[in-house]
Amino acid sequence: MASDGFRALEQKALVEYIKATPVLSQKLANQFHELTIKEVGDGNLNYVYIVSTPSASFVLKQAIPYIRCIGESWPMTKERAYFEARTLKEHGRLCPDLVPEVYHFDRKMCVIGMRYIQPPHIILRKGLIAGIEYPLLTEHISDYMARTMFFTSLLYLTTTEHKRAVAEFCGNVELCRLTEQVVFSDPYKVSQYNRCTSPYLDKDAEAIREDNALKVEIAELKSKFCERAQALLHGDLHTGSIMVASDSTQVIDPEFSFYGPMGFDIGAYIGNLILAYFSQDGHATETNDRKSYKSWILKAIEGTWNLFEKKFTALWDENKNGPGEAYLPDVYNNTEVQQLVKQKYMKELFHDTLGFGSAKMIRRIVGVAHVEDFESISEPSLRADCERRALNCAKTLLKDREKLQGIAEVVSLIQRH
Amino acid sequence: MASDGFRALEQKALVEYIKATPVLSQKLANQFHELTIKEVGDGNLNYVYIVSTPSASFVLKQAIPYIRCIGESWPMTKERAYFEARTLKEHGRLCPDLVPEVYHFDRKMCVIGMRYIQPPHIILRKGLIAGIEYPLLTEHISDYMARTMFFTSLLYLTTTEHKRAVAEFCGNVELCRLTEQVVFSDPYKVSQYNRCTSPYLDKDAEAIREDNALKVEIAELKSKFCERAQALLHGDLHTGSIMVASDSTQVIDPEFSFYGPMGFDIGAYIGNLILAYFSQDGHATETNDRKSYKSWILKAIEGTWNLFEKKFTALWDENKNGPGEAYLPDVYNNTEVQQLVKQKYMKELFHDTLGFGSAKMIRRIVGVAHVEDFESISEPSLRADCERRALNCAKTLLKDREKLQGIAEVVSLIQRH
Repeated sequence: MASDGFRALEQKALVEYIKATPVLSQKLANQFHELTIKEVGDGNLNYVYIVSTPSASFVLKQAIPYIRCIGESWPMTKERAYFEARTLKEHGRLCPDLVPEVYHFDRKMCVIGMRYIQPPHIILRKGLIAGIEYPLLTEHISDYMARTMFFTSLLYLTTTEHKRAVAEFCGNVELCRLTEQVVFSDPYKVSQYNRCTSPYLDKDAEAIREDNALKVEIAELKSKFCERAQALLHGDLHTGSIMVASDSTQVIDPEFSFYGPMGFDIGAYIGNLILAYFSQDGHATETNDRKSYKSWILKAIEGTWNLFEKKFTALWDENKNGPGEAYLPDVYNNTEVQQLVKQKYMKELFHDTLGFGSAKMIRRIVGVAHVEDFESISEPSLRADCERRALNCAKTLLKDREKLQGIAEVVSLIQRH
Repeated sequence: MASDGFRALEQKALVEYIKATPVLSQKLANQFHELTIKEVGDGNLNYVYIVSTPSASFVLKQAIPYIRCIGESWPMTKERAYFEARTLKEHGRLCPDLVPEVYHFDRKMCVIGMRYIQPPHIILRKGLIAGIEYPLLTEHISDYMARTMFFTSLLYLTTTEHKRAVAEFCGNVELCRLTEQVVFSDPYKVSQYNRCTSPYLDKDAEAIREDNALKVEIAELKSKFCERAQALLHGDLHTGSIMVASDSTQVIDPEFSFYGPMGFDIGAYIGNLILAYFSQDGHATETNDRKSYKSWILKAIEGTWNLFEKKFTALWDENKNGPGEAYLPDVYNNTEVQQLVKQKYMKELFHDTLGFGSAKMIRRIVGVAHVEDFESISEPSLRADCERRALNCAKTLLKDREKLQGIAEVVSLIQRH
């Protein structure tokens, strides 16, 4: 055990831990004789255990003081568990049907006990690779994004509440620095961690590192990421942080949460849908050319932005006389000015979304962490073709985003690549 | 005495306080028999005492828990003294010749002991009203702005240092809220605190309250003010927060300091120079038409931006391999891209400066706190004429700022009004 009281829990220690923690043992009605514990963490960072008896279950997630997929050579504060629990509770309060409940949090041990998201839920990314359509996904995710961002921004909070929350989340700086490195820096320089489908994409990766116009855009995005405390973001809202079933969507793993620019979350999600789109040709078979699934993904992209915009501005309208101090009703006191400020706000947010979304796409192709959408395409030249089209699409989106008038134009641009 | 140990110091209590505080009594070499204490606070918020003996002196400044110029009906946290002392020390470390040293800080009593800025120093605003030219002012202020902002931004700090400082200054939220109210809200709505040179400017003030295009711009600036933690700002850098002599410039009173957008400080200073320019016709006499002084002010405006830009980008060049994490040398690794990012950064900062500068001008004419530049023009119709030209100039600057290519165009615009 470390001097701070932390110890990584193994199978036997886990049982003792559960027995010694009333809220957890009560969840199991103190029935320990048929207890099973299964480690299922397939993410990059933590250990995740499904704890179950025939009649009850929950998940225990423990953060360890380094990055699991790299090893102890890349230390990473286990305090991230605090911010994950904090945001699960805050976003869960705002979207109870879309975020697992937290039953237990132990700051010293960095352990979160939360609802087990049962089968048939799977990770959305795996569903996208399998070509499964989720009829409620866009409705649910646009709800999640609109509500979590609106209610944690100055559109709803007072300055006092906002600054208090910003100050608290400044504490999650190590995770923010990790994002800075892997999203905004490493892909644009030579780094030991970068990799790509070599040798096919070597020239493409080199071109990224030598593209001055791209670096200028990335600098602007990075400074917004570091400086602009617009809302409490999930911080890592890709398709691997979402679990889905046909009638349910659950957002998990907000350990990267921080106060940042809203476009970072929306862009992460839409950017990963675009990656999924470009990976489809690699998953086509003789019996399924994936054409109709590609159309479904494009509809999901278009629908996500459109529904988000509709719901976010509806929340704004509903709460225009609420506590938020950004647009005081006595100042923004006529329909025309209310329309003008909303249009301006949403336009900037749209361009931020495209910028951050493209940055997230690029880093998944030439940076350290790749996506299973492409990695599961076993033929390297086919994989590289898919990745190259995604990369070129991302570069165009990033550079030309301010010329694009709406999400329909983005969809056309994707189709042209 | 309040339960927190605070008590407002009066003459007699001050002497006891100094005697009981070793660092202060040592400043006076324990010579108390010829001690004089003079209250000189002419600002809006605090009490300021000059403490002197024939051979030594210092200033004691005490924050009280309300706004002095309004009274106990407008409470204001005395914790502002903590942030003032904190920033005096930080900016003083960066610009020792331009900021008074702090000898003593007492958090409980909200008392700062600092260097007395001796005559012939006067408040810059009074010098501008008197028509005095300060040959080194532009050199000094551009130094102050370039150094305080560069070294507290991500151009020099690591993300870890930056977020720690941002979190700390989130604590000065009450002063930020005061700025939000008096700069970004009250002038654009009916407020009991607003006043203007009535009846001459009644229609002008009403036009401001009904100008939707202006409100859209103000919303964008307000959101940058609240959300963008770019550097540790003074927070109230008008010409009343600067003391000058022919060979010396001293920046005082940073109790509004916070992490915000750099353009807010530069704009405060330049905006107040523009107000001084428009007030000159009201101070003209038969023997002094103030024409040459108006030219001097215009040169100061142009020189301030140009020298600031030169010094700020020079610091950037000098420190491009330093600790700052915004532009990593391995990414920004060629002269062309270094030029491109600097141009983009400075262009945005220029437009922010014009936006915040105009907002500061507007609020001084139709908001709660006016400036002596205009207030000292005794003939109301003449004062109103000067104010109206300043107001119209500010409105144009605010709305058209992104069309302006450089400070020379701003000077032409000022001259046209």
